[in-house]
Amino acid sequence: VLAGEGRGFCSGGDVDEIIGATLAMDTAQLLDFNRMTGQVVRAVRECPFPVIAAVHGVAAGAGAVLALAADFRVADPSARFAFLFTRVGLSGGDMGAAYLLPRIVGLGNATKLLMLGDTIGATEADRYGLVSELVEDDELAAATRRLAKRLAEGPSLAYAQTKMQLTRELDMGLAASVEMDAGVQALLMNSADHAEFHRAFTAKQTPEWKGR
Amino acid sequence: VLAGEGRGFCSGGDVDEIIGATLAMDTAQLLDFNRMTGQVVRAVRECPFPVIAAVHGVAAGAGAVLALAADFRVADPSARFAFLFTRVGLSGGDMGAAYLLPRIVGLGNATKLLMLGDTIGATEADRYGLVSELVEDDELAAATRRLAKRLAEGPSLAYAQTKMQLTRELDMGLAASVEMDAGVQALLMNSADHAEFHRAFTAKQTPEWKGR
Amino acid sequence: VLAGEGRGFCSGGDVDEIIGATLAMDTAQLLDFNRMTGQVVRAVRECPFPVIAAVHGVAAGAGAVLALAADFRVADPSARFAFLFTRVGLSGGDMGAAYLLPRIVGLGNATKLLMLGDTIGATEADRYGLVSELVEDDELAAATRRLAKRLAEGPSLAYAQTKMQLTRELDMGLAASVEMDAGVQALLMNSADHAEFHRAFTAKQTPEWKGR
Repeated sequence: VLAGEGRGFCSGGDVDEIIGATLAMDTAQLLDFNRMTGQVVRAVRECPFPVIAAVHGVAAGAGAVLALAADFRVADPSARFAFLFTRVGLSGGDMGAAYLLPRIVGLGNATKLLMLGDTIGATEADRYGLVSELVEDDELAAATRRLAKRLAEGPSLAYAQTKMQLTRELDMGLAASVEMDAGVQALLMNSADHAEFHRAFTAKQTPEWKGR
Repeated sequence: VLAGEGRGFCSGGDVDEIIGATLAMDTAQLLDFNRMTGQVVRAVRECPFPVIAAVHGVAAGAGAVLALAADFRVADPSARFAFLFTRVGLSGGDMGAAYLLPRIVGLGNATKLLMLGDTIGATEADRYGLVSELVEDDELAAATRRLAKRLAEGPSLAYAQTKMQLTRELDMGLAASVEMDAGVQALLMNSADHAEFHRAFTAKQTPEWKGR
Repeated sequence: VLAGEGRGFCSGGDVDEIIGATLAMDTAQLLDFNRMTGQVVRAVRECPFPVIAAVHGVAAGAGAVLALAADFRVADPSARFAFLFTRVGLSGGDMGAAYLLPRIVGLGNATKLLMLGDTIGATEADRYGLVSELVEDDELAAATRRLAKRLAEGPSLAYAQTKMQLTRELDMGLAASVEMDAGVQALLMNSADHAEFHRAFTAKQTPEWKGR
């Protein structure tokens, strides 16, 4: 679970501590810095666990991209998203945002958000498909905990493979994707969890998932 | 037209007949089985005819993916979609679902549906862009027949090429897609149907499409 | 800004002047003609300036694809979109439409629009994510001017790079996109506009963007 402490989710890089610091960097340092932030996004997309962003208040700049990299975005009505990179003279295509956002909200909406850097509220974000679950005020912590608990107690190997396929098949063709799916599912049909489902279902019990 | 008989569209693999059977298969048999189901999806995407899924009641598991593979999903208010693979300990990326679903409803909605395996109703599916035409109760058969008739009587070569390009250009770059379109359209500008349109339009008649 | 004079945005190729003319072309001429129209779309997608389509009345055929190629579609309630290629016996995959439309509105909606060639109004187009800004009657010119002015006075190098990344990363994988973003942002962190933002912010002034 990625969540902010205090007033918001994450307001992005500080003008003095981050922007001020980058102004003093040389070329190699700038490349290192931007590769480092981009690797955070790749790590979130490539780790074998579902990641939940619990968004209240502002998710801005790098904070908005972090939320984008998560698998689930649970948001309350205070949530606001702002990809404000162009507002500071930088490119909206930061940390994989120009890759991820069109695949989540479509190219038209992504262009608007990344080019202009305007702030959108929870309702508009939800309408674009940017929000996985829009909850009431004061329900964010409970809803996030409920989803995290469900995922933690579920068939984790099945979740990990689902996430891997969603991530990889964005970059693959139809025939290769269908072939990948056949291999993954053949593997999981041999898994302990799949056998456990059949046993529990037949015995009219709840499966006890092992993630194996 | 893909349609279910009885209470629903297709409830997916039976727990005993399919899941029970797979538990007894060896590695090669499992791979064969999963390649076979995946080939059904490829066949629907690659055949040169528009395919309509007429969805009433549940489209679950492999049934939900079949509906996904169709070009049109006509649904009535009873329609429900459930990609419930993880519920049985398997991956949500089955039969090309992790390839197709993000391209239809966006990555965020697709992650929610494939990872959790929850059931969504017709209204939510429509909001995600999963439904091509949402019709009233008892209107499903008539609406499906109307669409099928329209497609069957239309310019079938133009439909076939449109479908091929939609299918293939998901896996292609911008420059190659524009070049493919130029070649396809140059071909169709030489077709009998295109000349027939011009003749009929000039004579203020309805074109008689031949699919040639 | 792409805008129509008179009643609509652009009604596409004329039945006599375009369709009539193509019927008299030989194979090489047809290929040249279709490559030429496709190059218009590539030019709009690949030029380093944001392009706004101001849509009132009908955007049909090639006119609908031109609107699709733009970065922003500002529309008033009179706007109508019709990819009517199959209505004249041609493929809906014209000038990159089968590439662009699924990436803007999803594969399901794109199939419906390109295969059937039906006309949709401003509200339905907005619901699909095809409209960037839906304005009141008589507000189209003012809203377009406001957006164009904002973009013209903004950090143009940052906009150009954002557009380039949105365009190119549709055709790239996650790892390559993150790497491209790191290089682009390292470059822009060295730009005059980024330094100007920091100077202006610290001095509590509005930045004066130079596009350098």
